[in-house]
Amino acid sequence: MLVVQKYGGTSVGDCERILNVAKRVSETKQKGHGVVVVVSAMSGETDKLLGYTKFFSRLPNLRESDMVLSAGERVTSALLAIALEELGFKAISLSGRAAGIITDDSHTKARIEYIDVARLNALLAKDYIVVVAGFQGVTKEGEVTTLGRGGSDLSAVALAGALGADLCEIYTDVDGVYTTDPRIEPNAKKIDKISYDEMLELASMGAKVLLNRSVEMAKKLNVNLVTRNSFNYNEGTLITKEQEIMEHPIVSGIALDKNQARVSICNVEDRPGIAAEIFGALSEANVNVDMIVQTIGRDGKTDLDFTIPEVELENAKRVLKSFEGSVESIDYDKDIAKVSIVGVGMKSHSGVASKAFRALAEDNINIMMISTSEIKISMIIRLKYAELAIRTLHSVYELDK
Amino acid sequence: MLVVQKYGGTSVGDCERILNVAKRVSETKQKGHGVVVVVSAMSGETDKLLGYTKFFSRLPNLRESDMVLSAGERVTSALLAIALEELGFKAISLSGRAAGIITDDSHTKARIEYIDVARLNALLAKDYIVVVAGFQGVTKEGEVTTLGRGGSDLSAVALAGALGADLCEIYTDVDGVYTTDPRIEPNAKKIDKISYDEMLELASMGAKVLLNRSVEMAKKLNVNLVTRNSFNYNEGTLITKEQEIMEHPIVSGIALDKNQARVSICNVEDRPGIAAEIFGALSEANVNVDMIVQTIGRDGKTDLDFTIPEVELENAKRVLKSFEGSVESIDYDKDIAKVSIVGVGMKSHSGVASKAFRALAEDNINIMMISTSEIKISMIIRLKYAELAIRTLHSVYELDK
Repeated sequence: MLVVQKYGGTSVGDCERILNVAKRVSETKQKGHGVVVVVSAMSGETDKLLGYTKFFSRLPNLRESDMVLSAGERVTSALLAIALEELGFKAISLSGRAAGIITDDSHTKARIEYIDVARLNALLAKDYIVVVAGFQGVTKEGEVTTLGRGGSDLSAVALAGALGADLCEIYTDVDGVYTTDPRIEPNAKKIDKISYDEMLELASMGAKVLLNRSVEMAKKLNVNLVTRNSFNYNEGTLITKEQEIMEHPIVSGIALDKNQARVSICNVEDRPGIAAEIFGALSEANVNVDMIVQTIGRDGKTDLDFTIPEVELENAKRVLKSFEGSVESIDYDKDIAKVSIVGVGMKSHSGVASKAFRALAEDNINIMMISTSEIKISMIIRLKYAELAIRTLHSVYELDK
Repeated sequence: MLVVQKYGGTSVGDCERILNVAKRVSETKQKGHGVVVVVSAMSGETDKLLGYTKFFSRLPNLRESDMVLSAGERVTSALLAIALEELGFKAISLSGRAAGIITDDSHTKARIEYIDVARLNALLAKDYIVVVAGFQGVTKEGEVTTLGRGGSDLSAVALAGALGADLCEIYTDVDGVYTTDPRIEPNAKKIDKISYDEMLELASMGAKVLLNRSVEMAKKLNVNLVTRNSFNYNEGTLITKEQEIMEHPIVSGIALDKNQARVSICNVEDRPGIAAEIFGALSEANVNVDMIVQTIGRDGKTDLDFTIPEVELENAKRVLKSFEGSVESIDYDKDIAKVSIVGVGMKSHSGVASKAFRALAEDNINIMMISTSEIKISMIIRLKYAELAIRTLHSVYELDK
């Protein structure tokens, strides 16, 4: 079996921890598996380097920033190789360049274009444990690039895909993906298996362990992804194809997103193209619109409700100023939360939504907006009810069982 | 004019200092010169990284060590490029690889084989200030190497040679080379110009500003070398060809080396090959023998006195144990110092040595060993007289004038 393992910043936070990682890696190797390891920078290191660049400029040159930021992973990868060799294993570190990771030239947020795995395969064939510096690649012209937030996960998934690895294990300091946030609902259970699509919908919970970017790539490349804890030996959560999971629960998890704001535009002219104008302007300003609800028009007017990330609120206000003349009012509301019920099983089960509505009604929680997809029901409620709603829904769908 | 400037660890010790370096570099650029800058890692950084590698192994893998150790210079070079760009200059950082520095594969102490300056020249032609990460290169196969102690100086000198630069300025935290150690003789004067050969002989003083390795390369490549202080605007010391210096003082400087030990072997069998056997054995054990004095043989026996670096003493004792049977006695003496008078002008002046002998005699300082070369007179004396001897000789040759 060929396994790609990725260890994050806290897992390689100091030399002791790197040694611990070396031991884990060697255990996998000793089981007879081929192992490629992807490492992040020691925790705090990338922030320190980023701080240096910001000392000189609010907007430091991106090519140079990549040169600075890529240093941390190079160090950890070589240190891990040294540690593995000291444990008696054949190990070698590779920078993004040496690992053949070719990206576009969008410095500080580059996209992997392809991976030339010739050298990696040659080293694996010679029984080497190959340690790859995560988060980085080079352009076709040989310029160093970095992959942006969650970049090391992306390196691991892309390598697993290119190498046809059987498993890509992402090690962090949590056990895996939970049915909901355990800090809100102590009875939350770790999920053993979940489909890519469910994982993507659980993003707000998953963000702590995996960014959507990595899950999307894993889905595209058919990579079996496991998130595990590097500080214990608990089984993690396998994220895989829907078909690989024998029995789907109706609901897999309850997600919470408190960082949303609602925009309510009243009495918009109900003519073709007005929504396109508004959302076009927001999109141009890089404001991501999430849920949209448009009420049925009366008297040639309509109401438009939508949510945006809270951090984009000021940006959105600026954009929407130009529409103030042609609408009755624009209200902004930060005091909301988005609660989502996620499950592939919903596709074949009816009554999932009504069960949620009823349960929240019994708690006197008013639902302000609803949107549904095949595998998700999202509801906007008052922020103060967020935790209560999570606990209620978690219990209604028996996720604690 | 094309200038290569090299800034050491203390000169780029933190972001403030890097900004200071950027200002100095930009001043040179604004005078209309082409500028290539070579930087070390921020002071302390390389030791920190070295410490990491030693955590895992007493003898960490050398290839991996180079991957770790080369990180520091990459960071500083890119930070300086960011700072220069912020000051309004076109600047770009290059790793050793990108700068075309090709070395042999002696990891952690690689030798530069050649420099492919095509990219550097192209960037200079486009008016870029090029910032090169010092201390590193790559093998022909593309593996990262580092150049060992003083490696960044070496990068600078080699680049200056390959580019045919008019000047190679080495910036440190001292003003230049002095007629002797100013901590011993406060009247020591900064030397304005000195020949490569004198500089090499003054090694024990020069070590603080320049390693012999760099001076030797500068001599070989005909590079005009200047050592200057990055914290002030004083003129430094120019190290150049003997012919370039119009008027030579008879004596340029007085050097002191306290880290020598003397080995005295009494009544060695005076037959051909015995000295070769002894020095051969020492050389095999990597003990560098410096001064050697062999007395004229009597009764088929001879005495052999020589000096070695004090750190090699235990090593030498181990080696010489096997000769104990065939000699009368072997004495070891750490309580000595080597004082050297250096000057190209000696070649054409007689009486330089006798002046020294007389002066030391007047101070009741006994000379235990003497060796001379065309431009140097070295004497071994008791350690306790070292400072007195330095001050006396400095004054006798009027170096304070």
